[in-house]
Amino acid sequence: MSAVGLIVQKFGGSSLASIDLLKSAARRVVETKRRGHQVIVVVSARGHATDELHELARQVSASPPRRELDMLMATGEQQSVALMAIAIHALDEPAISFAAGQIGIYTDSQHTRARIINIDPRRILQELEQGRVVIVAGFQGVDEQFNITTLGRGGSDTTAVALAGVLGAELCEIYTDVGGVYTADPRVVSQARKLSRISYDEMLELASLGAAVMHSRSLEFAKKYRVPLCVRSSFDDGPGTFIVEETEEMEQVLVRGVALNIDEAKITLHQVPDRPGVAAFICEGLDRHGINMDMIVQNTGEDGLTDFSFTVAKSELKESLLAVEEAAQQVGAKRISGDANIAKVSVVGVGMRIHTGVAAKMFRALAEANVNIQMISTSEIKISCIVDVSDGERALRAVHQAFALEEGNGSNEESQSRGSPS
Amino acid sequence: MSAVGLIVQKFGGSSLASIDLLKSAARRVVETKRRGHQVIVVVSARGHATDELHELARQVSASPPRRELDMLMATGEQQSVALMAIAIHALDEPAISFAAGQIGIYTDSQHTRARIINIDPRRILQELEQGRVVIVAGFQGVDEQFNITTLGRGGSDTTAVALAGVLGAELCEIYTDVGGVYTADPRVVSQARKLSRISYDEMLELASLGAAVMHSRSLEFAKKYRVPLCVRSSFDDGPGTFIVEETEEMEQVLVRGVALNIDEAKITLHQVPDRPGVAAFICEGLDRHGINMDMIVQNTGEDGLTDFSFTVAKSELKESLLAVEEAAQQVGAKRISGDANIAKVSVVGVGMRIHTGVAAKMFRALAEANVNIQMISTSEIKISCIVDVSDGERALRAVHQAFALEEGNGSNEESQSRGSPS
Repeated sequence: MSAVGLIVQKFGGSSLASIDLLKSAARRVVETKRRGHQVIVVVSARGHATDELHELARQVSASPPRRELDMLMATGEQQSVALMAIAIHALDEPAISFAAGQIGIYTDSQHTRARIINIDPRRILQELEQGRVVIVAGFQGVDEQFNITTLGRGGSDTTAVALAGVLGAELCEIYTDVGGVYTADPRVVSQARKLSRISYDEMLELASLGAAVMHSRSLEFAKKYRVPLCVRSSFDDGPGTFIVEETEEMEQVLVRGVALNIDEAKITLHQVPDRPGVAAFICEGLDRHGINMDMIVQNTGEDGLTDFSFTVAKSELKESLLAVEEAAQQVGAKRISGDANIAKVSVVGVGMRIHTGVAAKMFRALAEANVNIQMISTSEIKISCIVDVSDGERALRAVHQAFALEEGNGSNEESQSRGSPS
Repeated sequence: MSAVGLIVQKFGGSSLASIDLLKSAARRVVETKRRGHQVIVVVSARGHATDELHELARQVSASPPRRELDMLMATGEQQSVALMAIAIHALDEPAISFAAGQIGIYTDSQHTRARIINIDPRRILQELEQGRVVIVAGFQGVDEQFNITTLGRGGSDTTAVALAGVLGAELCEIYTDVGGVYTADPRVVSQARKLSRISYDEMLELASLGAAVMHSRSLEFAKKYRVPLCVRSSFDDGPGTFIVEETEEMEQVLVRGVALNIDEAKITLHQVPDRPGVAAFICEGLDRHGINMDMIVQNTGEDGLTDFSFTVAKSELKESLLAVEEAAQQVGAKRISGDANIAKVSVVGVGMRIHTGVAAKMFRALAEANVNIQMISTSEIKISCIVDVSDGERALRAVHQAFALEEGNGSNEESQSRGSPS
C-alpha cells in the first residue's frame, strides 16, 4: 500500500490565487519530483473562487439545498487540479488530475461537512508507479450513491493528511502564505518567532483557539495516523514548522505559543440557583439550536446562587441569547447578559504538564499590564483568559514577553523571523 | 426503459447567462413539470464561462493536455446544473443535479471531441420516479477509466438528444436565443420567416452550411433514433420549430430555407493534368494535417488539364495552402491560389427531389442580382454557390425572394415574425 519516498504537498487558495503563483507552486512540485520523490498534490479552490460561488448560489436562492451547494463548490477545486496539471505538463513533467470521485475518496452523506470514510488508493498508486505527479481536488468526496460532498472548513488539509495517512507518505507539506507556526500572530506581536517544531496536541489547542494555520479536524487525523506534517511557506524556501509527536525534550519548554481570539462573545446567566441539572438545561437549549459553546465556566456560589458563563461564536450571540432564554427561566436565573466585546488570550504548551507556575506567571503578566481577567479556563496544556476586547492585543504581547517566547525558551527553536528565506 | 410523458429541455449558455435568465429557465422547467410531465433538464456552461476557462488554460500553457482541458471545461456545466437545481428548489419543486460521471454517460477517450458510447438510465429513472426534476450537465461524459471527457461543439445538444433517445422521451426541446429555425438568417434577411416544421435532413443540411441552430452530430443522432425535436425560444412562449421525419407534404415545398456561410475560403489548383489519382493525392495531403474540406469541385478539363477547387474553414486557409503544396507538385499543378473573400449561398429543401427547376431559379435570381457564381455544388436536397464575399448578403436576399420564402410557400408554415410571442 505504500509508495516510495512519497510526499503529499497541499496548496491553499492563496497559494494559487494568480497564474504566476500557480506556476510557482507547479515549479515546487516538479523540483520535489526531480529530487526522486513520488508526489501527490492536493489543491484548494483558487483565491476567492469559493466565496464567489457562494455568492452566486445566494443570488439564486436564500436557502440553497446543501447537496447542490456541494455540487457547485466542488467545481472550484476541480478547476485548480486541471490548471495545476496543465502547469506541471508545461514544465515537461507528466501529471494527471483527479476529482475526488474519480479516485474514490468516500465520505458520509453529510453535505457541506462530510467526513472521509474510506479512500481507495489503487488508481493513485497506478499513476504514481507510471511516474506521474498525481493531483487531487481537496475539500471534496463522494458518498456511496456517488453524490458529491464537501468536507467543510479546512477540508483540503484533511484530504492531504488523509491521503498521506492512507498511502504511508514520508511527509505531508501544507503550503500557506504564513510559512509556519509562530509563537504568536506576527501581525499582533512583532517579536513572534517561527517554531521549528510543535506537537500535535499543542497545534490542536492552537487551532481550537482560532490561531488557525490548520483546522482541528485535519490535525486530529494527522495525530491519530501519525502523519508527519510540515507547515511551510509557498512564497519562500524557509523550512517551516514540523508538527510531530511529542518528545520529552518538548516538555522542557514552559509555553510553546500564545493566541488571541476575538471572534467569541460571552453570555452569563446571573444568580442561578446552585443545584443539579442547571448546566445540562442550558447546554441542551443551545444544542437544539445547533450552537457550539467554547469556554464554560461556573464558580462555586454564595447563598445558594451562582453565575454561569460561557462563550459562543460572536456571529451566534443573538441566536444564543434567544436559545438560552427559556432555559434561564426554567433554571430560575435572575438575569441574562451578553457581551460581544471580549477577547480570549491563551497560552499553550505541553510543558505545563510538568511545570508549575505557568498560570501564576500568566496572571502576573496580565496584572502588570493592567488587564482585568473576566473568566479563566484551563486544560492540561492550555490556559485561557477572557479579557475586555480593548485589552486583547496588549494582553497577548504581555504574555508573549512574560514567557520570553521571542528568545526561544527551549533548545529546539530557531530564531528566524517571519518570511525570510533560509 | 421509458418514462411517462418525459420531456427533455436543453438550455444553452446564453439562456443562463444572468441569474434572471437562469431563474426564468427554472420557471419554465417547473411549469412543464406541473403540467404533469417528467422533466430532464440539460444545461450548458453559463454565458462565456467556457471561453473564460479556455483563456485561463492558455495563460498557464500554450499547449495544455486535452485530458486536463476537459477536466477544466467540465466545471462550467457542473456549475450550471447546481445553480439550476438551486433555482428549481427555490420554486418548491424537488430537483437533483448530476455531472455526467454520476449517471453514467460513457464516451470513448477522445478528449475534447469524445463520442457517447452508452448511457446508463437507472439513476435517472429512479430520480424521475421519485418525482424529481433531473438536471444533467451537458457536453460531458466519462470514459471507461472514469476520466472526464467533453463532446466538442454542440455537445450539450448531443447530450439532450441522446438522453431523449435512450429514455424514449416524448419531446426534446432545445431552448435558444433565436427561438426556432428560419427561412434565412433574420439578421441578413429581414423578411425571414420562422418555420413551424423542418425535416431532419433539411436541418442537417442547414447545420452543415453553418446556419447552426444545432450541431450536425446531435441532429444525426436525433434522426437515427427518431427523437422528436423542437427548437424554441428561451425568451418567449413562441411554438418554435419542430424537427420531424419527412412527410410527403413537405415535398410540396420547393425550398425550405436559404443559408449564407462566410467562414470558408477557397483553394484552387490550376491546370492540373487530368488523370486518375489527382483528387486522392490532394485530399490525403489535407487529411494528414487534419484539415476538413467542405465543397470539392472539379470540372471536365480541356487539353488534358483541369482546375481542382475546394473550400476549407477560413481559419485553416494558411495551413491548407502549405498542406497542398507538396501534393500540387506531385500531381503537376501549374499554380495554387487561395481566396478568403468568398461566401457560400445555399438553398435547402426536400422538395428538390421531385421538383425540377430549383437550380435554374436560383441561378436566374443570382444573375438578376448581378452576382457572379464562382463554384457550384449540389446534393440531393441542397444547391450551394460560391460567390464573392461582397455579394454574399445580396445574393442571399435575392434567393430568399426568388423562392418567395417570406410568404410561406407551403401549407405547413406560419407567418410569424421573429421573437414575437404567440
